[in-house]
Amino acid sequence: MAEVRERRRGRGGGGAARRAERTAVRIEAAKYIERNIPDFEILTDEAIEIIEANADTLLEEIGVNFSENESALELWRNAGADIDGERVRIPKGLARQLCGTAPSEFTQVARNPDRNVVIGGRNLVLAPVYGPPFVRDLEGGRRYATIEDFRNFVKLGYMSKWLHHSGGTVCEPTDVAVNKRHLDMLLAHMTLSDKPYMGSVTEVERAADSVEMSRLLFGSEFVDANTVMTSLININSPLTFDSVMMGALEVYARANQAAIISPFIVGGAMAPVSVAGTLTQVLAEVLAGVAYSQLLRPGAPVIFGAFVTSIDMNSGAPTFGTPEAAQITFGAGQLARRLALPYRSGGAFCGSKLPDAQAAYETANSLNAGLLAGVNFMLHACGWLEGGLVSSLEKFVMDADQLGVLHKLAAGVDASENGQAMDAIREVGPGGHYLGCAHTQANFKDAFWRTDVLDYKPFETWSDEGGRATPELAAARVKKLLSDYQAPELDAGVRESLIDYVDRKKAAVPDAFA
Amino acid sequence: MAEVRERRRGRGGGGAARRAERTAVRIEAAKYIERNIPDFEILTDEAIEIIEANADTLLEEIGVNFSENESALELWRNAGADIDGERVRIPKGLARQLCGTAPSEFTQVARNPDRNVVIGGRNLVLAPVYGPPFVRDLEGGRRYATIEDFRNFVKLGYMSKWLHHSGGTVCEPTDVAVNKRHLDMLLAHMTLSDKPYMGSVTEVERAADSVEMSRLLFGSEFVDANTVMTSLININSPLTFDSVMMGALEVYARANQAAIISPFIVGGAMAPVSVAGTLTQVLAEVLAGVAYSQLLRPGAPVIFGAFVTSIDMNSGAPTFGTPEAAQITFGAGQLARRLALPYRSGGAFCGSKLPDAQAAYETANSLNAGLLAGVNFMLHACGWLEGGLVSSLEKFVMDADQLGVLHKLAAGVDASENGQAMDAIREVGPGGHYLGCAHTQANFKDAFWRTDVLDYKPFETWSDEGGRATPELAAARVKKLLSDYQAPELDAGVRESLIDYVDRKKAAVPDAFA
Repeated sequence: MAEVRERRRGRGGGGAARRAERTAVRIEAAKYIERNIPDFEILTDEAIEIIEANADTLLEEIGVNFSENESALELWRNAGADIDGERVRIPKGLARQLCGTAPSEFTQVARNPDRNVVIGGRNLVLAPVYGPPFVRDLEGGRRYATIEDFRNFVKLGYMSKWLHHSGGTVCEPTDVAVNKRHLDMLLAHMTLSDKPYMGSVTEVERAADSVEMSRLLFGSEFVDANTVMTSLININSPLTFDSVMMGALEVYARANQAAIISPFIVGGAMAPVSVAGTLTQVLAEVLAGVAYSQLLRPGAPVIFGAFVTSIDMNSGAPTFGTPEAAQITFGAGQLARRLALPYRSGGAFCGSKLPDAQAAYETANSLNAGLLAGVNFMLHACGWLEGGLVSSLEKFVMDADQLGVLHKLAAGVDASENGQAMDAIREVGPGGHYLGCAHTQANFKDAFWRTDVLDYKPFETWSDEGGRATPELAAARVKKLLSDYQAPELDAGVRESLIDYVDRKKAAVPDAFA
Repeated sequence: MAEVRERRRGRGGGGAARRAERTAVRIEAAKYIERNIPDFEILTDEAIEIIEANADTLLEEIGVNFSENESALELWRNAGADIDGERVRIPKGLARQLCGTAPSEFTQVARNPDRNVVIGGRNLVLAPVYGPPFVRDLEGGRRYATIEDFRNFVKLGYMSKWLHHSGGTVCEPTDVAVNKRHLDMLLAHMTLSDKPYMGSVTEVERAADSVEMSRLLFGSEFVDANTVMTSLININSPLTFDSVMMGALEVYARANQAAIISPFIVGGAMAPVSVAGTLTQVLAEVLAGVAYSQLLRPGAPVIFGAFVTSIDMNSGAPTFGTPEAAQITFGAGQLARRLALPYRSGGAFCGSKLPDAQAAYETANSLNAGLLAGVNFMLHACGWLEGGLVSSLEKFVMDADQLGVLHKLAAGVDASENGQAMDAIREVGPGGHYLGCAHTQANFKDAFWRTDVLDYKPFETWSDEGGRATPELAAARVKKLLSDYQAPELDAGVRESLIDYVDRKKAAVPDAFA
């Protein structure tokens, strides 16, 4: 079982500190998952070789587009690629060779060093939902997200024991100007949480702001020497690298900040309808993207990303928690490990509009596949609803609770003498029961994963308490967490400098909403 | 993808047949799953050896109880066990050696030979929920189950494409006398479905009735020569074999009918709180039970069963879909394969009172673990609710739909030339889309698993249609399936003989309700 770190935090000194100590909320935060179980490998060696050879063929014969990006084309030309307009054709073997300088694991530092995460290896780091323009909760229904919602999600993430990362765009704060909202989002992550966070990628300048604000938070020299952000660089599948995303990648890679290089694929639309075909395209795209990051700065920390879902051929809607998505998640993990790159995939994906059974089937299918596939960084690990259009407050805590299941499962089976429990079986014998035996007394507290949301009570008790379904139980937990929330300590001068930076940048240009 | 068999069935001949043909409901039934993916092996070789050695030690030092069963004690004594009162101590190695005569796979014949199932090997056979005294549906809420409910579940099972087996006590028909309800249950399975079924185990005489009715259905000689039932023999954990269950096992084994030899364990109560300790006890119990079946009749078909859940240490309630249960499911699969026995575990387990998100998280966790653990026979694969107290009509079809996910996932990745889809990627190229390309046109129909229950529609459409949650979507499907239902053909003479048998047996003794 992952070590659980507890902290109590008061605010200020003297009597106030003692009063704060008495009322402080205990914040538990689990260490990132260190897997003690094998990976599930769905592809045969032969299939892997076919896919790798096909990806190389694709890169050489078809190539990829780097659009509106002269400097990228220049870098590729110098590296030995064949450039034809915006098309970059990469000789077989070159992309894989360039990927060789990327680290197989790296540390993303948090402002609270207890929250540092090591991404790669046998580890799994869990981060919340990213990107939805809408929020939903039981009380308010479905509506456009605001910065207030955003802050609530950051607070919930900070309070969630099994979540290791504060994430990025936990929802789109649509009440803040498009050209300024990244500032408020970063400020929220930096001040309301002490977990690691992601930078902005929607414009080069916003990526630069993310680096600047990180310098204020950590100190300039520290940021130069450490990775303090992991940001999401989507590939415009099929086989296209647009200049906005590449611009952000250029900022981050050159600053030695981490990037997830991630095809964004709805299978059947942006990739073939077959699993092997999709894996081939994913591999080709990641090879090209990671290779480019290493052309920008050899050694820049990057992650092999695969966001893959399939399409409902009747409606054209993306679908989640499907067997094809699971197969791709498993297979891409194998391909990533062959490249010795950290791997991003999986998440609490669902297509359902409500945090109902559909949502949970789809989510659990995705979470389980992600864990067993050997994912190292799981974005969208909680709160995702309606195909990513909605961040759900209730589903955030429901999913975050299930992340505890992943921690325990990943810890593997304890075959020590205590785990073997022969003394217990001898003590109890045929026909007895274990509830009171010495081994149970010594182990029951940590023996089983415990939910903070689900209901295990007898029917009558549950019925007397109102017969609540899961979203109602979750809503009560959301309310309690937000009411218990206390901001982690932050140096007042640092906080001022961050607020000042945001204010100045906001005042410098007019609002833009598109 | 598993072959899907379609049938159209009319009734009678001539004009009636043609009319029936025009209106006949298409019944699709998938073949049992033939896994084309590896098993997930959570135990190291070292852990397996420790558990196997400990199980042998347990059997020799502590032994098991065969209660009120002189003939069993006699069989064990003759086989070389040490008998002390009801305690049977089995010398190391003996139980495993006796298990050697059990077949590693066997065919359970259905009255429709297209529905025969091969249990063992790389196969997975899915059977519905077993045992709940209550039913729940959206319209009627939670109530005691009746024979009418029972028949509806059998009909739903017959209509469910991804379900290979009709099961046994799909719910307890509490409106029929305890000493007679097995007759009505068997009659329902035999007449309302043509899928394979389970026999009664609650009294020796009821097991004998199950064999007799099977003789009427299949013919006596056929039943002597073939396995036509797979029945559930629970072990009274820890380490106790009661005379009622053993009595049923004796009837079935001697008739060459299959039995699942299954510890029934709530971890922390009937087994130690640790995974390795529970696996040790499970293995010891199954070794003793399977060995006993082979003492009764060498070669009798049996299944290594493991029904294992954990306990909520706060309330004492059993919990489902937990990481500990998944670890045991994975580990027991490895132990079963080492014995070359078919393996029963997994199911649509949940503790939730409603078919809500809790139910679906727990269920999906259990179903995924069961598939990847290499389970060969999955009882409770759909319809289970509230810790097995309730059979849910809506959850039956919700879960049955998810069983399609398992079929597709188990088919593995197609790495053929068509699966590689290089032609598609070449045709589409950077920046294009795949919706209309030749490969998509040729493959889209079977490319992706399709739900029959879940909603993929855009938010606005879904909202206009009433904003239904999963149970409401499922209720509509239940209604449609039951209204479309047509009984499979059955020889009129056979039907008469079955009804006559049931009537005679019922008339012979007064009702008993305890």
